Amino acid sequence: MTASATTIPGYCYGDPALPPSALTPGELAELEASLLFGPDDVAALRKAGAIVADRIEAILDVWYGFVAAQPHLLAAFRENGTGEPIGAYLAAVRQRFGQWILDTCNAPHDAAWLAWQEEIGRRHHRSGKNRTDGVDAAPHVPLRHLLALVMLISLTMRPFLAEKGASAEEVDAMHMAWTKAVLLQAILWARPYVRAGEF
Amino acid sequence: MTASATTIPGYCYGDPALPPSALTPGELAELEASLLFGPDDVAALRKAGAIVADRIEAILDVWYGFVAAQPHLLAAFRENGTGEPIGAYLAAVRQRFGQWILDTCNAPHDAAWLAWQEEIGRRHHRSGKNRTDGVDAAPHVPLRHLLALVMLISLTMRPFLAEKGASAEEVDAMHMAWTKAVLLQAILWARPYVRAGEF
Repeated sequence: MTASATTIPGYCYGDPALPPSALTPGELAELEASLLFGPDDVAALRKAGAIVADRIEAILDVWYGFVAAQPHLLAAFRENGTGEPIGAYLAAVRQRFGQWILDTCNAPHDAAWLAWQEEIGRRHHRSGKNRTDGVDAAPHVPLRHLLALVMLISLTMRPFLAEKGASAEEVDAMHMAWTKAVLLQAILWARPYVRAGEF
Repeated sequence: MTASATTIPGYCYGDPALPPSALTPGELAELEASLLFGPDDVAALRKAGAIVADRIEAILDVWYGFVAAQPHLLAAFRENGTGEPIGAYLAAVRQRFGQWILDTCNAPHDAAWLAWQEEIGRRHHRSGKNRTDGVDAAPHVPLRHLLALVMLISLTMRPFLAEKGASAEEVDAMHMAWTKAVLLQAILWARPYVRAGEF
């Protein structure tokens, strides 16, 4: 990922035009407390980001291989009518997904980040899917499939964190911080799916 | 947990009066595939169940201590009006929570189990909360708080799995299986929160 984030089509983290998240900073702090996410995790994520920065494409290869092999996941990328996976759509999402790895490691959990999580949720939900890339694909990613990917994205990261000589203890800490940060985001992505007042 | 499951008030796993889950066996299999949950995990969970069976109260002490220390979590147990935590409610949930640990390790993922997951979801959601125990407590557990507890319930189990001399590799396998099974259930509990057709 040598390209500046701002050159990635459809990547809107930090865009002041994004609507703010409905979640308050206090509510985010509650969630982080529930997840046992603290300063040690922030530090471990920064280390993780440095370790995986040159391995983004390899990580995406693992994830894309997994999604491509599971019909219920690949379904999100299929064109209405033909049922064919849309290569350009897969490629466009992939660029943003790579940047998301780095953001997960490095981005402060502030209002801009919260607004971007809200937007990522909308882009999976029927209220916003396909618009960013102008595709005529499946209209919605079911919440259950979105949440379940937390496990894949957690488990498959561990070997990459261990590639650069960190101790087992350091790898454990980075992996735990990564998993917490991924679950936190998946929870935030669920908001557009949930009835008003129930999230 | 020496008491028979059927003697636990409000515990309804296997009750034929429970409405069936809307999730089909095929959809459950998709979710398990997304979670990389397979026969090895089933076997590891059975081992885990044998290891923790005599430690249920100690595990619950950890979880209840965590919930009691976090106002946004304890809120679910507070009485409307007085705002006081309802001791009898906490105690009644605790009995079922203990049995849930054993069920998570031992129960087959069949239609009866799916129906029980659906009911557990309803009991956190405003459509069913408080009824089982006949309490006048907070009317709803926000989905974000329910989902975030996956992390606590995952992380705090590991030391208990390591208590009986299993190898580090066995503990890892049991812990991974436990985490997958907990996330699977939390996802199923989200269904009552989500708009029709979006889960």
